[in-house]
Amino acid sequence: MTTTKFEIRAGTYFDSVVLMQLQKSLVALDGVDDAGVVMATPANREVLISTGFSLDGITASPDDMLIVVKAIDEVTAADAISQVDALLKANRSSGGAGDFRPKSLRVAAELRPDSNWVLVSVPGKYAANVVHEALDLGKHVFLYSDNVSLKEEAELKQKGRDKGLLVMGPDCGTAIINGVGLGFANSVSSGNIGIVAASGTGAQAASVGIHSRGGGLSQVIGTGGRDLKSDVGGITFVQGLQLLAEDENTDVIVLISKPPSAELASKIIGIARGCGKPVVINFIGLAVPMRTMGNLSFAVSLDEAAEIAVQQSNKHDQQQNHNELPVLNGFVRGLFSGGTLAYETVLGVQLSFAPLFSNVAIRPEQKIADINKSVAHTIIDMGEDEFTQGRLHPMMDNNLRLRRLQQEVADPETGLILLDVVLGEGAHADPVSEIAPLIAEAKNTRPELEVVCLVVASADDLQNTSAQIEALEAVGAQVYRTVGDVLADLNGRLPASPDTGTSVQWSDKMSAINVGVETFYNSLQSQEAEVIHVDWRPPAGGNKKMMDILAKFKKK
Amino acid sequence: MTTTKFEIRAGTYFDSVVLMQLQKSLVALDGVDDAGVVMATPANREVLISTGFSLDGITASPDDMLIVVKAIDEVTAADAISQVDALLKANRSSGGAGDFRPKSLRVAAELRPDSNWVLVSVPGKYAANVVHEALDLGKHVFLYSDNVSLKEEAELKQKGRDKGLLVMGPDCGTAIINGVGLGFANSVSSGNIGIVAASGTGAQAASVGIHSRGGGLSQVIGTGGRDLKSDVGGITFVQGLQLLAEDENTDVIVLISKPPSAELASKIIGIARGCGKPVVINFIGLAVPMRTMGNLSFAVSLDEAAEIAVQQSNKHDQQQNHNELPVLNGFVRGLFSGGTLAYETVLGVQLSFAPLFSNVAIRPEQKIADINKSVAHTIIDMGEDEFTQGRLHPMMDNNLRLRRLQQEVADPETGLILLDVVLGEGAHADPVSEIAPLIAEAKNTRPELEVVCLVVASADDLQNTSAQIEALEAVGAQVYRTVGDVLADLNGRLPASPDTGTSVQWSDKMSAINVGVETFYNSLQSQEAEVIHVDWRPPAGGNKKMMDILAKFKKK
Repeated sequence: MTTTKFEIRAGTYFDSVVLMQLQKSLVALDGVDDAGVVMATPANREVLISTGFSLDGITASPDDMLIVVKAIDEVTAADAISQVDALLKANRSSGGAGDFRPKSLRVAAELRPDSNWVLVSVPGKYAANVVHEALDLGKHVFLYSDNVSLKEEAELKQKGRDKGLLVMGPDCGTAIINGVGLGFANSVSSGNIGIVAASGTGAQAASVGIHSRGGGLSQVIGTGGRDLKSDVGGITFVQGLQLLAEDENTDVIVLISKPPSAELASKIIGIARGCGKPVVINFIGLAVPMRTMGNLSFAVSLDEAAEIAVQQSNKHDQQQNHNELPVLNGFVRGLFSGGTLAYETVLGVQLSFAPLFSNVAIRPEQKIADINKSVAHTIIDMGEDEFTQGRLHPMMDNNLRLRRLQQEVADPETGLILLDVVLGEGAHADPVSEIAPLIAEAKNTRPELEVVCLVVASADDLQNTSAQIEALEAVGAQVYRTVGDVLADLNGRLPASPDTGTSVQWSDKMSAINVGVETFYNSLQSQEAEVIHVDWRPPAGGNKKMMDILAKFKKK
Repeated sequence: MTTTKFEIRAGTYFDSVVLMQLQKSLVALDGVDDAGVVMATPANREVLISTGFSLDGITASPDDMLIVVKAIDEVTAADAISQVDALLKANRSSGGAGDFRPKSLRVAAELRPDSNWVLVSVPGKYAANVVHEALDLGKHVFLYSDNVSLKEEAELKQKGRDKGLLVMGPDCGTAIINGVGLGFANSVSSGNIGIVAASGTGAQAASVGIHSRGGGLSQVIGTGGRDLKSDVGGITFVQGLQLLAEDENTDVIVLISKPPSAELASKIIGIARGCGKPVVINFIGLAVPMRTMGNLSFAVSLDEAAEIAVQQSNKHDQQQNHNELPVLNGFVRGLFSGGTLAYETVLGVQLSFAPLFSNVAIRPEQKIADINKSVAHTIIDMGEDEFTQGRLHPMMDNNLRLRRLQQEVADPETGLILLDVVLGEGAHADPVSEIAPLIAEAKNTRPELEVVCLVVASADDLQNTSAQIEALEAVGAQVYRTVGDVLADLNGRLPASPDTGTSVQWSDKMSAINVGVETFYNSLQSQEAEVIHVDWRPPAGGNKKMMDILAKFKKK
C-alpha cells in the first residue's frame, strides 16, 4: 500500500533540465516508487494522472511547480519531499559553474560583441521578448522554444526579414550552420548539398541519408514546422532558399516540408525553378504526378530525397537546361473529354499554377463556380454528367467542346488552350477534321495564342493516329502523347520568379549566445564553437503582465 | 439581325445520336446561323444560353425535346423548324436498316441464347431497369450510361456479385474483354498485363502506354468511377482483381483509381498482396511514401504505371518473394520523438493499417481522441507541444516515452511497439541505456511482443551509433535506419487477405447485346465481335411512373 504526497511551489521557475534531474533524484531515493516534477500545466497534470498519480484535490496553476512523490509509506514520502531543496541545490551547483555567466542577453552581447547567433530555448511564453531583443542586437536567431503563437512568429520573422536576419523557428529542432549543429543535429560530412527544412527530424533523416551515401552538407536551415502556413507565408523558407541559391558552396538544394498552400507552393516552386541549381523537393504527403520538372526533382520520401540529392551532387555538369518554350502569356484553359486526363492535369499543375479552377477539383478551393465560365487557370472535364445529359459524350460529339473553344479564344485572358483528343473504338471517326479548322481560325485571330493537344491513342487506332496528329500540327498545335509531357510543357512555360529581395546578412562564422536549456550550450562547446551561456531567469519572476510592462519600457 | 425560333416536342424520346444528327442537319441549312437540339434538362438549357441562345419564355421539361434555330430572318428560321420531321426520318432510315432489330432485350436474348454480355447506354433514368433485366438473364453488363444513382449502382452490383456476374459502370467508359473493346477503347496488342480501372481514360492512357512499350493486355476491366466509394464498396473492383489474379493469361495486374477510403484501400491492398502476382497501383492523387511494397509497385502517373507494368511483364521469373516476417498479432503502437518520422510513418501505413489513429493525423478520421490512450493502430509524436510544456523534448528525456512504453506493453491489444531513437548533438548522451532495459522487461513479460526501433543517426554520432544499435538488438529489438525500411517491415507483417469468394462466371467468348447508342453496335461489328442491336425505346413512352409499374409487374 503506497501513499502519495505533493508540494506546490507557486510561481517558481526552473528550467526543464533541473526539473528532470530533480525527478530522477527523487525516484532514486529508497522507498520511493515514483515521482513527478513538472510545471502544473493542464497537459502535464493529465500526463501524471495517465501514468498513475492521483491528483485529487491538488490545485495548482501552470506557473506553479508541482512535485508529487509516491512512496511505500507516509514517512518516506514526506521525507522525500523535505529533501527537494537540497536536491535542487545539488543539481544547480553541478553544471559547469566554472565560467562566468551573464544574467541577460544584453550583457552577453556586450561580452561577445562579435557573436552573430542567439539560441533561444526558454519557455514559449517568454520566447518572443527574448527574440525581439536578439533581433534588435542584430543577431540571427535559432528559436527552439515551442508554444509560441503564430501571431508572434509572423511578427518576429517579418522583423527578421526587414533586418536581413534569419529567425529559425519557433519549434525549430535542427540546423547546421557553418558546420556547427544547433539543437538536434547529426555528425555529417560537409559538402555541396544544402537543406531548407520546415521539419527537424526531416532535416536529420535527410542529412544522415546524404552522409551515409558519401555526400556532404553545406548548410542545413531549419524554419520551424509552421513557417509555410499562410499566416507566416514561408518567410524563413524563402530566405533560406535564396541564401542557398546564392551560396557558392552549395551545388544542390533540398527542400523539405509538409505540403504548403497552393499559393505558397507556386511561389516556392517559382523561386526554385529560377535558382539555376538542381532542387530536390519533398513536400511530405503531397501526391506528385511526375518525378522531375526542369531542374526540380520530386522525392516521395526523406531517404529518396537524400538519394537523389547525392546523385545530383556527383554530376560534374551542373548546367540546367533552360527551357526553350515561350513564357506563358495569359491563363491556361483546358477543355477535356477524358475525366482522368483532366484530373491528372489538375494534379500536375496545382503546385505551380494559381489560382486554378476545375469541375474535377482536387482541393476544395479549386471548385469552379460556373462550369460554363472559365476563371483564371481553368481545367474542365466536359465528359462529366453535367455536360452529357441527353447528349453524346465529347469523345463522340465535338459540338459542345468546339463552342467552348471559341468562347475561350474570345476571352482575352486566355493564353493557352489545352485539348485532349482521345482516339479508338467508340470515339468520333475523325475528330481532328472538326477540331483543326477551329484551331486554325483561333491562331488566325490571335496568333500569340498557344494551343496544346494531348492525343491519347495507339499507333494502330482506326482514325489513323499519325494523320490526326499531323493535321493538328499543321494548324500550329503542339501535340503530346502523355499527360506527363503536357505537364512538362505547361510547367516549362512558367516564368521563373523574380529575386525575392530577401538577402540575408551572412557570415561564415558561428559565435553563439545560448539563452535557455543548458544542454545546447554544452553541445556547442563540445563542437568547439564559440558560445556563451546566459543564466536566464524569467523577468519579473515570471509574472507575464509585469513582464510585458518591462518589455514596453525597454522598447522606449 | 438574326431571329430565333424554337419548337418543343413534349415527352418525345430520341437517342443522342439522332439529336446530334438533327442538329447538324439544321445548322447545314442555308441561312441558319446556329441550332440546338437537346432534351430540355436544366443543364442543357444553361449550355444553350451560354453558347448564345436566348431561351426567354421557353418552358420545357427534361423529358421534352427542345429544338432552337437561329437564322438570318423569321422565314428561314420557321422553314428550318418545319423540316425537322423530314430530317428526322432521313436520319432514321440511314443507320444499317439492313438487319432485323428486336425491340426488347428479352427478344434479343432469345435470338442469341449464347450471348454473355449486355452493353447498356440508354439514358440514366432508364438504365437500372435494363441492367436488372440483363442480370436476370444471366449476362455480364457493361453499363455506359451515366446519371444513375449511387443507390441503384450498389443494388445492381450486389445483385451481380451474388450471381457471379460483372456490372461494369455506371458511367463506365472503357473495357477490353477477350480482345474486344467496349465503349471507348484503343487498338492495343493482347498480352499478359491485366487492368482494373475505376477510370475510363485512365485505362485508355495506361493500355496505350503498355502497347507503345511493346507490352500487351489480357483484360481491361472497367468499374465506373464511383465503384470505390464506400456506398458501393468496390464490388466490381474486387471482382476484377480476383478475376485477374485467377486468370492464367495474366502475369501482371494494374490497378487504377482515385484514392479509395482507408478501409477499402487496405482491403484492396490486402487482396493484391495475397494474389501472388506483381501488382502496379496508381491511386491517382494519393501520396505514396514508397515505390514498392512486396509484390506491389506504386506509380505516380498513368504513364509510369504502364512503364512499370511492362518491365514486370518482361521478367522471366514472376515468383514473388514471400516475406519471412511473422504475421502481425495485435496492433502497432508507435511512440516517436521525431515528428516528421511519425508523420512519414502514418503516411506509409495508412493504406494498409486500419483503423489508424495519431496526433499527427493526415486524414481527419485518424485524429486520436486522447493522446494518452492508444486505440487500434496508434502512432504518437511525443515531441508535440502538448507533451513538451515545461518538460524536455523526448530526444533529451526518455521518461515520458518509457512510461508510455510500459503502458503499451500492459495493453494486451498491443502486438508491435515501434520506437524511434534519434542520436546526435543535443540528444540524450546514451538513450539506449534507458530504453533497452524496458524492452528486455517487455520481451520477458510478453515474449510474443514485437519491438521495432528506427535509429536515425550518422555512423559518427557522439553516442556511438553502432554500440547503441547493438544494445537494442541484444534485447531483441528489430533495428532499422530509415522510415522506408520500417514501413517495409510493418507492411511485410500484414496477413494477406483471404479469398473474397467473389468468383465470376467467366468465359473466353464475347457475344454481346447492345441496348442504347448505336455507335457501340457499329464498333463491335467493326471489331468482328458477335453483336445484336436492340432498337430500344423507353417503356411507356418514357413515362417514369408507368415504367416503374411495368417493371414491378415483370418481377412478379
